[in-house]
Amino acid sequence: MIGIVGLGRIGLILASAFLNKNFRVVGYDIDPERILENIYSGSVELHPEEIVREIIISSYNKKRFSIRSIDEISSEASDIYNIIVPVNWVGDKPDFESLKRASEAVGDVLSRGDLVIVESSVPPGTTRGLVAKILEKRSGLVAGRDFGLAYSPERVSIGRGFYDLTRNYPKIIAGIDNYSLEIVSLIYSEISEKGVLRASSLEVAEFEKLAEGIYRDVNIALANSLAEIARRIGLDFWEIRELANSQPYSHIHTPGVGVGGVCLPYYPKFLLWYLSSVGEGKCWCGELIALAREINTDQPRRVVDLVLEGSKIIGIEDLYRSKVCVLGLSYRGDIPDTRESPTYHISRELVSRGFSEIVIHDPFVARDDFLEKIGVSLTSDLRECLSNSKIIISATDHGVYKDLSTNHIKHLSGEKKILIIDGRNIIKYSSESDDSRKCLYGGIGKKWMWC
Amino acid sequence: MIGIVGLGRIGLILASAFLNKNFRVVGYDIDPERILENIYSGSVELHPEEIVREIIISSYNKKRFSIRSIDEISSEASDIYNIIVPVNWVGDKPDFESLKRASEAVGDVLSRGDLVIVESSVPPGTTRGLVAKILEKRSGLVAGRDFGLAYSPERVSIGRGFYDLTRNYPKIIAGIDNYSLEIVSLIYSEISEKGVLRASSLEVAEFEKLAEGIYRDVNIALANSLAEIARRIGLDFWEIRELANSQPYSHIHTPGVGVGGVCLPYYPKFLLWYLSSVGEGKCWCGELIALAREINTDQPRRVVDLVLEGSKIIGIEDLYRSKVCVLGLSYRGDIPDTRESPTYHISRELVSRGFSEIVIHDPFVARDDFLEKIGVSLTSDLRECLSNSKIIISATDHGVYKDLSTNHIKHLSGEKKILIIDGRNIIKYSSESDDSRKCLYGGIGKKWMWC
Repeated sequence: MIGIVGLGRIGLILASAFLNKNFRVVGYDIDPERILENIYSGSVELHPEEIVREIIISSYNKKRFSIRSIDEISSEASDIYNIIVPVNWVGDKPDFESLKRASEAVGDVLSRGDLVIVESSVPPGTTRGLVAKILEKRSGLVAGRDFGLAYSPERVSIGRGFYDLTRNYPKIIAGIDNYSLEIVSLIYSEISEKGVLRASSLEVAEFEKLAEGIYRDVNIALANSLAEIARRIGLDFWEIRELANSQPYSHIHTPGVGVGGVCLPYYPKFLLWYLSSVGEGKCWCGELIALAREINTDQPRRVVDLVLEGSKIIGIEDLYRSKVCVLGLSYRGDIPDTRESPTYHISRELVSRGFSEIVIHDPFVARDDFLEKIGVSLTSDLRECLSNSKIIISATDHGVYKDLSTNHIKHLSGEKKILIIDGRNIIKYSSESDDSRKCLYGGIGKKWMWC
Repeated sequence: MIGIVGLGRIGLILASAFLNKNFRVVGYDIDPERILENIYSGSVELHPEEIVREIIISSYNKKRFSIRSIDEISSEASDIYNIIVPVNWVGDKPDFESLKRASEAVGDVLSRGDLVIVESSVPPGTTRGLVAKILEKRSGLVAGRDFGLAYSPERVSIGRGFYDLTRNYPKIIAGIDNYSLEIVSLIYSEISEKGVLRASSLEVAEFEKLAEGIYRDVNIALANSLAEIARRIGLDFWEIRELANSQPYSHIHTPGVGVGGVCLPYYPKFLLWYLSSVGEGKCWCGELIALAREINTDQPRRVVDLVLEGSKIIGIEDLYRSKVCVLGLSYRGDIPDTRESPTYHISRELVSRGFSEIVIHDPFVARDDFLEKIGVSLTSDLRECLSNSKIIISATDHGVYKDLSTNHIKHLSGEKKILIIDGRNIIKYSSESDDSRKCLYGGIGKKWMWC
């Protein structure tokens, strides 16, 4: 029986992949009630991926999958423990609390011959330096002798995560010793069609996962840089990007209003934090990664700079009392996940500069505490958001915005002067029409155009 | 008849692509004798690509291809002129001299209805701001009215350039007006199987070409950074890279001893120079690109730092009198092109730190003025280079080095203490053998290992 510790989105994907291959699974979470409620109600809240919901619900009903509180973890239930809990970045360091708690719980029930697999994305050295030590201390056993310990990074993108895990990529695995590696290889060969790739050490596997994310973060920062250069010299970056990427060695990324989620914004910090912790914090080798992070962090502020620049060009009177409609709160299109979303930062920046009427539209998010706290409204009614807005900012590439044109926005706003900041290259530009309204269209990597 | 101005490697690829589709071509160069000699002798010096040599020689013999000095350019010969001359970076700015000279020569013979296509990689605005003005001044005609003007960046990699142009990628085109665009589209549709992609302006096409190179330069700098982080924490970056790139969204590049050639080192500077020239030199948007360039420029120095670090570990006595063998002078593997090669910088750095016996090996380069000047030897005899060398650095990934192992090097050197710095991940590491010799193996992105 496989025990999965942490039933977040990725934990449930992992559970469903094992269940799908006829493993029996028991899941542990700090809030089992929430998951059980979603199973009973069949709610989409259970998981964004339909296949995951189906497998989880049917397995639960067939009693092949059970859910317990992490405090009720017991040694009878499992011999393989899979730890997939969040490690976030809080303040100026990684927050290992969930990982520590999960390791303690597993350590308390660990038996000789068990295997523990860590899946969370962590700084190099965490499995050996933190998890192994807690497990050993709580169990009185020795990792690599009495029990197995492995690291295997999750590499899934929510929305297609089940297929990423089971079909799309090989699973990367590493063990504290050969025995651990052989067992984890056997297990993951069962669920991953592309098989496994063995890393030579736990740390190599921990590093490789961060490297994947850092590659993307740096390339988004490069795209943001090139987009701004193009904009400043009056060119459309989106056209340049498409042309450049017509040869197979060019993978210029998509610029945007910032980078959200708990992967890309955290991984560079995890690696640089680790580098510091081993006394190499001043190495030149961290500079590019740190600068890229800074560039991406500053993007929401630059979106608001664009608002001010455009307002001057079009001449919006009583600017700070103008209604601003921001399209999208999720950090990625068509998912209901707002963690570290740039829209929060755009909203805060707008508030701090004195804008008084800000409305966020999102079809996937019903309420939000942070926005409420800073006095920003949230609606799922697109017309309500656009109506009487003088400033419209696209911040998320939800599919629902793909039908919006500058003309639609003009009509739905009804205002005489309208400024559109397309942060995600998602609003269709319709050329200037001969009506009484003035409309200015700009955005990330875009020159100003009348609409 | 198509006139190609500039018969360098890329000019000859362009000529052969046109000749292959039964166009008649006349080529202009500042040194036609050199090319003619290579044609007569059938020398491999004519061009590194066999197909290009074949087409050029047979077309010349059939009198479908002729070669003249650029001073003998005449208006009868051509109605389409293709300018493909080098624009280099000299000191702190682009060197437009060749482009000016080519434009003047073409301008002097330009007739109404002719078309001029610029192919050189240039800062945005060069075709319109420099070439068009020279052509207009010398011809008395107006671009876009009396004659056509287009920009179409070369996108070929020497070694497979003929196929890059004719099969692998679409040709990007832009015209100063619609007429120019239509004509250049017709012409390139003939030679490019993947067809053409139209850019909305000359500047967009100029920018996209630089963007392709900048993407690579920044990604090499990222790879160099990650490689150094891995090395400092005792991990092998090459393994990490391979694992990370096992999913299709990760394209982490190859780290190395530096970036040579006249593309990648120049393009970031072209773009940043242009940004400055329009008063945007202080934009944050140039910082990442500039830092990446700096990182890549510093790599050769870091290779020498590794030499000193390794020498201390292994304890090489009389270090600065030890023979150093550097493998490879070309900036890329298996081509005879040394322009801006990192090996020059490594050599200079070694000399300036006091190393007195430096030998460079390259199978493709017979002599080199710069090396001679700074007192560094060059040989095509690998044994001669390795013999009695205490320090061995791999700097180019020539195929011939792929069979070298640390064991071979130990035997060929014969020295008692040998330090191997593998800058290109090309030398096979054989584990420590039980002989009397001490051998230390390290390199870019590698932890130190005894060999």
